[in-house]
Amino acid sequence: MAEGTGHLEPDAVEREQSPPNRVDRWLLNMLNQGCGEPDADIALWDVAESPATAGRPLLRITSRQALYRLLVKPELRFGELYASGELEVYGDLADLMERIYAGLRRATLAKGPLRHALERAMQRRARPNHLDGSKQNIHSHYDLGNDFYALWLDPDYMQYTCAYYPTWQATLAEAQAAKLEHVCRKLALKPGERVIDAGGGWGGLARYMARHYGVTVRSYNISREQVAYARERADAEGLGDRVEYIEDDYRNITGTCDAFVSIGMLEHVGLDNYAALGAVIDRSLTDKGRGLVHSIGQLSHRPLNEWIERNIFPGAYPPTLQEMLDVVSNADFKVMDVENLRAHYAHTLEHWREGFEANVGDIEQRFGAEFVRAWRLYLSGSRASFSAGEMQLYQVLFERNWSEALPATLSRLYRDP
Amino acid sequence: MAEGTGHLEPDAVEREQSPPNRVDRWLLNMLNQGCGEPDADIALWDVAESPATAGRPLLRITSRQALYRLLVKPELRFGELYASGELEVYGDLADLMERIYAGLRRATLAKGPLRHALERAMQRRARPNHLDGSKQNIHSHYDLGNDFYALWLDPDYMQYTCAYYPTWQATLAEAQAAKLEHVCRKLALKPGERVIDAGGGWGGLARYMARHYGVTVRSYNISREQVAYARERADAEGLGDRVEYIEDDYRNITGTCDAFVSIGMLEHVGLDNYAALGAVIDRSLTDKGRGLVHSIGQLSHRPLNEWIERNIFPGAYPPTLQEMLDVVSNADFKVMDVENLRAHYAHTLEHWREGFEANVGDIEQRFGAEFVRAWRLYLSGSRASFSAGEMQLYQVLFERNWSEALPATLSRLYRDP
Repeated sequence: MAEGTGHLEPDAVEREQSPPNRVDRWLLNMLNQGCGEPDADIALWDVAESPATAGRPLLRITSRQALYRLLVKPELRFGELYASGELEVYGDLADLMERIYAGLRRATLAKGPLRHALERAMQRRARPNHLDGSKQNIHSHYDLGNDFYALWLDPDYMQYTCAYYPTWQATLAEAQAAKLEHVCRKLALKPGERVIDAGGGWGGLARYMARHYGVTVRSYNISREQVAYARERADAEGLGDRVEYIEDDYRNITGTCDAFVSIGMLEHVGLDNYAALGAVIDRSLTDKGRGLVHSIGQLSHRPLNEWIERNIFPGAYPPTLQEMLDVVSNADFKVMDVENLRAHYAHTLEHWREGFEANVGDIEQRFGAEFVRAWRLYLSGSRASFSAGEMQLYQVLFERNWSEALPATLSRLYRDP
Repeated sequence: MAEGTGHLEPDAVEREQSPPNRVDRWLLNMLNQGCGEPDADIALWDVAESPATAGRPLLRITSRQALYRLLVKPELRFGELYASGELEVYGDLADLMERIYAGLRRATLAKGPLRHALERAMQRRARPNHLDGSKQNIHSHYDLGNDFYALWLDPDYMQYTCAYYPTWQATLAEAQAAKLEHVCRKLALKPGERVIDAGGGWGGLARYMARHYGVTVRSYNISREQVAYARERADAEGLGDRVEYIEDDYRNITGTCDAFVSIGMLEHVGLDNYAALGAVIDRSLTDKGRGLVHSIGQLSHRPLNEWIERNIFPGAYPPTLQEMLDVVSNADFKVMDVENLRAHYAHTLEHWREGFEANVGDIEQRFGAEFVRAWRLYLSGSRASFSAGEMQLYQVLFERNWSEALPATLSRLYRDP
């Protein structure tokens, strides 16, 4: 990690600290204003560690050094300092993040100069994705170990993407199965058809499609561990003859298909490659072919939070809906439907967080306390960013312009199974 | 009409024609190639008027002058020459147009030089819409007389926009009521809420909402005849206290609302004014407000067919979906759903055409033969352009980014009433 994020021992920090002075207090006030005076308490190191007051979360900055570093680059430093233990949160972390997002929104509406400075600081391009770079970017996140993800993802399909909740009472497993069903219905799959799945994760979508829709699926993924897991599981479930997992990049997809689907890959593709992805889809789809792209998105063009981009998803970028449409706008595809499932992702992340916390002892033993704090922040912060509208989740359904293979209404999505 | 489209008497034309020479035949061949060799016959004036051969429509060019004029500016001249009777069609006109569109698509894919020239000829900006211009543009089309439209629109709601067919067996009246219901459900209207309707036509949507959803509606329209009709009818149906029809431009909308709806107005707004429309919506909607914009669209940026723009819809432009999103992208709105109803518009236009032809005697008596031919071409050509994918129909649903007033799924759209 660049720029000296190695942290001091807490004891050493405590020893060398003098109590907050007037400059520290003035900076704290600036920070509070820059965040739009969020409905939360922000305290300095003179405040004893203490539980949050009723319903109001508390953020404690444990040292002068942490305060200074936070002010210089808040988007990056918040995550680093929280992961290292130099920021402490009392009360619910996701709740705190949501209150900060709400404050930042107010600050944006008020167009304060500090907020503008903060936003300028965030204007930074994600690193470009070339074939080798993509492989490295993906490895660092998805090859943490299948066992780790199995602790908190849904066991049936290991979906590491937004679920679909027919009602908020659905369990994570039900909602992930419902998501897969939703996607299959949107694509109007028919038995015997051929599907290409770009960025297939642990292979759950391909197995679902083969089992419930009688199609054959070729699923591409550049994560070796995921592909190994997917193959083993498909074989164990007797689906090995209908699903093929290919360890390769989407740019190397060959052959044709009746449906092209990509769930949660576009975030890693990089804007510069959208036209290339569109060309791959164009050369893959038959004349009656349909396509669906599912991706995290956002309302205006901004890089992903720098801390998440550096530490969790290297090279990731969530497109605006207009940018996302660039994937299909060069070829002769017509968009038939766009659905925003943002609230579903907030709910999914809450379920993941619950699963993560239920296994936090195991995880800490294996990866250490800093890893736990980083992941806690990532899951909580992501939940907050979907709840607060910092992030969206779009599914875009399309087909060839001259084709009418898709039914003229979406009633098929809401029929009982 | 500019540039001398007044037509010669047929007899005079016949007298002065020499039979087609080698240049004429070469030009006909060019025309055929430029249109991608459509699956239809194109004949010159030496071919006797005759019904089309089985299932294959015939286009007859009745004079050398017509052939030359057609070649110079086909997008404009086809309509003018058909309306004046100098082009004759044997067989089904919409069918012929669809075959020509299919041919042009093939020609585009083959990227022939004549097609490029044709496309360049079409690159022309629609006339800008200032407040006075808008009024004039709208008058020329919508003030033809309410009686004329009543002959072939659905009697209940006089909808001059795309209907929604739950099944293709639905009648026009059923499908227009279903469209209004579809829109109300998308907006999740609740009794007592306040709606603003921008470009309200003959007031059918406002009456439907007030009657079936218990809301109050303020409906803006700059067509005096339509507003007069709408007021009279709402009073007659006892809805006068819940709907208010205001003869004014969308830019002059005042007050706030829980739902902002605009069905078939954006086509007349002009790209330059999308941000202004977005600002009107932004200042009108409450914090829990929802919005829906319904518009004809297209896949790539091209002006409307010049003949239609000049003669039927002055100043009109169908946006791409990306351009359409410009309406909501400056304010803090999140798009929740986009639906493409293109096939429904082809069906609607077929129903309108049937109604028009069923009353063609009356219409010809009142407006003359050229008017009938022009409208026949407009209705048939529009049907063909939706069938062939030249045009799309988008409904965009949105709400404030931080609001979750809209339900998280669209299942409400498909429940029985």
